[in-house]
Amino acid sequence: TRTIDLAVVAGDGIGTEVVEQGLAVLEAAVAGSDVKVSTTPFDLGARRWHATGETLTDADLDAIRGHDAILLGAIGDPSVPSGVLERGLLLKLRFALDHYVNLRPGKLYPGVTSPLADPGEIDFVVVREGTEGPYVGNGGSLRTGTPHEIATEVSLNTAFGVERVVRDAFARAQARPRKHLTLVHKHNVLVHAGHLWRRTVEAVNAEFPDVTTDYLHVDAATIFLTTKPSRFDVIVTDNLFGDILTDQAAAITGGIGLAASANINPDRTAPSMFEPVHGSAPDIAGQGKADPTATVLSVALLLDHLGLGDEAKRVEATVAADLAERGSRVRSTAEVGRELAARVAG
Amino acid sequence: TRTIDLAVVAGDGIGTEVVEQGLAVLEAAVAGSDVKVSTTPFDLGARRWHATGETLTDADLDAIRGHDAILLGAIGDPSVPSGVLERGLLLKLRFALDHYVNLRPGKLYPGVTSPLADPGEIDFVVVREGTEGPYVGNGGSLRTGTPHEIATEVSLNTAFGVERVVRDAFARAQARPRKHLTLVHKHNVLVHAGHLWRRTVEAVNAEFPDVTTDYLHVDAATIFLTTKPSRFDVIVTDNLFGDILTDQAAAITGGIGLAASANINPDRTAPSMFEPVHGSAPDIAGQGKADPTATVLSVALLLDHLGLGDEAKRVEATVAADLAERGSRVRSTAEVGRELAARVAG
Ligand SMILES: CC(C)[C@H](C(=O)O)[C@@H](O)C(=O)O
Ligand SMILES: CC(C)[C@H](C(=O)O)[C@@H](O)C(=O)O
Repeated sequence: TRTIDLAVVAGDGIGTEVVEQGLAVLEAAVAGSDVKVSTTPFDLGARRWHATGETLTDADLDAIRGHDAILLGAIGDPSVPSGVLERGLLLKLRFALDHYVNLRPGKLYPGVTSPLADPGEIDFVVVREGTEGPYVGNGGSLRTGTPHEIATEVSLNTAFGVERVVRDAFARAQARPRKHLTLVHKHNVLVHAGHLWRRTVEAVNAEFPDVTTDYLHVDAATIFLTTKPSRFDVIVTDNLFGDILTDQAAAITGGIGLAASANINPDRTAPSMFEPVHGSAPDIAGQGKADPTATVLSVALLLDHLGLGDEAKRVEATVAADLAERGSRVRSTAEVGRELAARVAG
Repeated sequence: TRTIDLAVVAGDGIGTEVVEQGLAVLEAAVAGSDVKVSTTPFDLGARRWHATGETLTDADLDAIRGHDAILLGAIGDPSVPSGVLERGLLLKLRFALDHYVNLRPGKLYPGVTSPLADPGEIDFVVVREGTEGPYVGNGGSLRTGTPHEIATEVSLNTAFGVERVVRDAFARAQARPRKHLTLVHKHNVLVHAGHLWRRTVEAVNAEFPDVTTDYLHVDAATIFLTTKPSRFDVIVTDNLFGDILTDQAAAITGGIGLAASANINPDRTAPSMFEPVHGSAPDIAGQGKADPTATVLSVALLLDHLGLGDEAKRVEATVAADLAERGSRVRSTAEVGRELAARVAG
């Protein structure tokens, strides 16, 4: 018997609702096998912050480190000042656990309506750098609140950090039929960071000679995501551009209700974290309206990361089958979860 | 008689082709009035750089300063290292001439096909900050080309710079029927710059009490530009986010062949600059295939800026009429320009 020790950060708003269904599907996926799931809930997010002023303590982080993986729902609430939970909890987890590969598939499943008139076949994956760039928190403000205020944000990019995520993206491209990698940056303006990315892609390409590459400025990438998303296979990009492009990718493939993500530590020096791309959606929280599909697809990424490839494929195929039949049927969060779990259990 | 002294930077690739047509329409728009157009060509761009190593000399800049406005085609060529012309010429013009309002309308004209299945009515304008943010060129790299390289890009944001562009955006919102302003940033991650923008919008709102405001993170903004672009009236945002969003805005409103822009110095301490959003498109240069419509719409913005509001409206109405009838007719750059000019002349 193998036990998956899962840290569960349900978080805020719809986070708790979708995580419950994600866990139900996870249980169903391993039911009857010799894999067991053991979950440890972590009370992190807005509620905890209001009660204690804490976002993520060293003790929390240590406890989380002992797990095989993390399932996260959503973090954030309007009652908490902007940035407190994002920087103090979500990004702290990604940075402290060295989640340098933020993996976000962009796939239009049959039966899902895209807002694009002629979407074509959309099936790409964005490898977003997760531990550097403009997300490092290296900014400040001087004479704050006066007419002489100056605020800075520093994007930090290292050869070490760029090379490891680029290599991961190449490996993913090589494992896919089209074997194509697109670097997205803005090297005509952000010349220093941009040229580091560019040189790195050129250098690492030598290790993957069968992978073809091209380059797009981030502004042009938003155009192609609108007019010809089928051109993309694997995209590698920095933390901020990846944030932007993956929300657009979610929009063209049916919305953030379906968009999964994995924050991966490929060196396995700490647990990886799996979370839907969507936020806590306080406007619909507690109403059973949230679509748990993105969380369930994130569970598939989790299973795959833990070496349970067959189970991962089964979960994804189940979601695909459900989406194909879904139509405009309105179901509650729990109904979707229950149907998916039943189908996965088979 | 009033003479418009126009500095013309046709630039590279299709730049020369579209500027020729833009000028023809400009001439037609003032024909028969007491306004005359006098043009001074400036040989700037890839050709000049290859010949002399110069991008924009102090003498060029001084000469340009003496003009009433600048019409720019497109800058850039793959034969020039990335960043050289962008930073040394295009951005240098925007920064040196204090073009702090980079104005980019996002309008879906009747008859134009959007790649969105259900675009609704799209009619917004992006006020992109033009002289600060991640575009300041404040970056560097250390141990370049080694495994220990570190590359930085610093976003600089000042109360002075943010306030003036935010005030301009409020004034534009107030002059529009819906009177709505959306701030786009990423203040949950870029907390220092983001909070400066946020506080500034709140403060300046007091001067424009009839303008309603809301806020979107840049990632969410790309979603709404895909699913509900009709929600936008005026968007105010920083230099980099504005770059990204305006290419996406162009994509959903029929492509960069139609997207106009104005780099405005509202204080009129230097000439403003009008340019299509598209680039030099070396792949189709010299073939008469480029659509000059974006340049012609930029000419309308130019006329408006110079106080020739009636002429501006006439040019825009002419483009609108042409677009309404255009269908899938294929015309050369010169044919489109000629027909537009004839129509404007009436
Ligand atoms: C909540 C926010 C900090 C986060 C990010 O910007 O990474 C979110 O938008 C995401 O994409 O996971
Ligand atoms: C060419 C480039 C420097 C420029 C920019 O990033 O501003 C362009 O993309 C634009 O939007 O005008």
